[in-house]
Amino acid sequence: MSTDYPVISRYRLRRRVQFYETDTAGIVHFSWFYRYMEEAEHALWRAAGLSIAPPNAHIGFPRVAASFDFFKPLRFEDEFEVELTIAEISKKAIRYRAEIVKDGVKVASGRLTVACVRKQPGQPMTSTAIPDEISSRFRIAEPPQTAS
Amino acid sequence: MSTDYPVISRYRLRRRVQFYETDTAGIVHFSWFYRYMEEAEHALWRAAGLSIAPPNAHIGFPRVAASFDFFKPLRFEDEFEVELTIAEISKKAIRYRAEIVKDGVKVASGRLTVACVRKQPGQPMTSTAIPDEISSRFRIAEPPQTAS
Amino acid sequence: MSTDYPVISRYRLRRRVQFYETDTAGIVHFSWFYRYMEEAEHALWRAAGLSIAPPNAHIGFPRVAASFDFFKPLRFEDEFEVELTIAEISKKAIRYRAEIVKDGVKVASGRLTVACVRKQPGQPMTSTAIPDEISSRFRIAEPPQTAS
Amino acid sequence: MSTDYPVISRYRLRRRVQFYETDTAGIVHFSWFYRYMEEAEHALWRAAGLSIAPPNAHIGFPRVAASFDFFKPLRFEDEFEVELTIAEISKKAIRYRAEIVKDGVKVASGRLTVACVRKQPGQPMTSTAIPDEISSRFRIAEPPQTAS
Repeated sequence: MSTDYPVISRYRLRRRVQFYETDTAGIVHFSWFYRYMEEAEHALWRAAGLSIAPPNAHIGFPRVAASFDFFKPLRFEDEFEVELTIAEISKKAIRYRAEIVKDGVKVASGRLTVACVRKQPGQPMTSTAIPDEISSRFRIAEPPQTAS
Repeated sequence: MSTDYPVISRYRLRRRVQFYETDTAGIVHFSWFYRYMEEAEHALWRAAGLSIAPPNAHIGFPRVAASFDFFKPLRFEDEFEVELTIAEISKKAIRYRAEIVKDGVKVASGRLTVACVRKQPGQPMTSTAIPDEISSRFRIAEPPQTAS
Repeated sequence: MSTDYPVISRYRLRRRVQFYETDTAGIVHFSWFYRYMEEAEHALWRAAGLSIAPPNAHIGFPRVAASFDFFKPLRFEDEFEVELTIAEISKKAIRYRAEIVKDGVKVASGRLTVACVRKQPGQPMTSTAIPDEISSRFRIAEPPQTAS
Repeated sequence: MSTDYPVISRYRLRRRVQFYETDTAGIVHFSWFYRYMEEAEHALWRAAGLSIAPPNAHIGFPRVAASFDFFKPLRFEDEFEVELTIAEISKKAIRYRAEIVKDGVKVASGRLTVACVRKQPGQPMTSTAIPDEISSRFRIAEPPQTAS
């Protein structure tokens, strides 16, 4: 019944581009940015003492929308940061913003919305309220989300 | 100097979900939808008699923005369609819309913008006009892009 | 209670290289060959009237060994074939061979062994016999597995 | 003309399973182990002061063979180690061994052979000797490669 836990509103993930993330154009394939954003999300949850997908969970957090604007390419072995912030928490959904930054320069800018659903074997997922023990760990980040 | 070539405004790609595209939630990982959309784009270019990335090309078409709204999950071995339409062609960019449809039901809805760039070894990519021999093969799709 | 079903010993999958499968060296990343081999395996199961991972299955077929020798690169938009053959079926395992062939030339040669396991929620997977209704659909391919 | 550089024979990479690496069986898809092994290889090269694929390189190191035996599954958020050792260096090739270890237990065991090739635009890759400034940084690991 502990009420001691971190309350989290942002997370900075440091990451290096792997070879298999690049494509024949010599840059990171754009599909990877969505994975980078999700990596930061899951690290943010861990920083809050949570797993977004613990074994045998009855709820889940499928993605309902995700977008990126791409400004600069990333290349093999580049080091970069994913700066993830919580932009909004509603009863049933969480909205994040992500900035991908390399050497202080903004490389890409993303948005991600996830919804809480109840999972029952063999049945469609149905929308449900985010449990208090999860939503209480998160707080909306104050602007400016990032200095860039 | 042939002026005989197909002019293309839409493409329908039929596809089956592969095992490695699913995740531990039992559904296709959302990052794959961006790849599905790009698969359809490249097939659309081939249908127009073009390759988006021929060997030793001096121009390229990096992605400048991509988004998806997700409505339903896809699962292992599901068959689905990617309905890609050309929404806009400007001097230096092409904008597509994509509908992911399974059994007549809309699963996800995406947008993709790509820009034409000049590539020079060791130099940053710079924006350039889409060559006529490419833009002349494409035409904006008339609404409604899809019946769904 | 039908005893009418196809008995399968080999499968030929025709496939085109997708952009996201290539890397900054301009060729298909080697990790993709293992996925190509598995795609052919799952298509072989479907040709036998089976799914290797139906919903709510109590058994599964994890990979216990996989290898490839690589002879030639594949590049963006290359068309190629995966020629998969069943090399051995034992009580609890199936062993496949795969040849990746482009324009009649062998590109890579692979092997894959999968084992049948019982899956119980929250417990380790345990080895089990392949059910008759599965093993009866497969037959070892007669040599030569491929002419190349 | 410095002769001061590290000479490397093994590398231990610590890594966490990402969500997109899992599949609908609830475990890491086997294709990822080959990527984990390569990640460790590239980190080993960096530890030796090298990049395996620097910009505008005239040589490259394509994979000529790779294999894994799989003993235990990995799951979402598992932490594990890739213990990579140099097993052999010949004039034109390097052979590695990899152990994937979680909580002291061997999860998988892999092998990887890469060859040095000369790259010329528009021409097939041709085998060539590994340059001294590369081979001098590596040394064969003394057995036992790993205690497990």
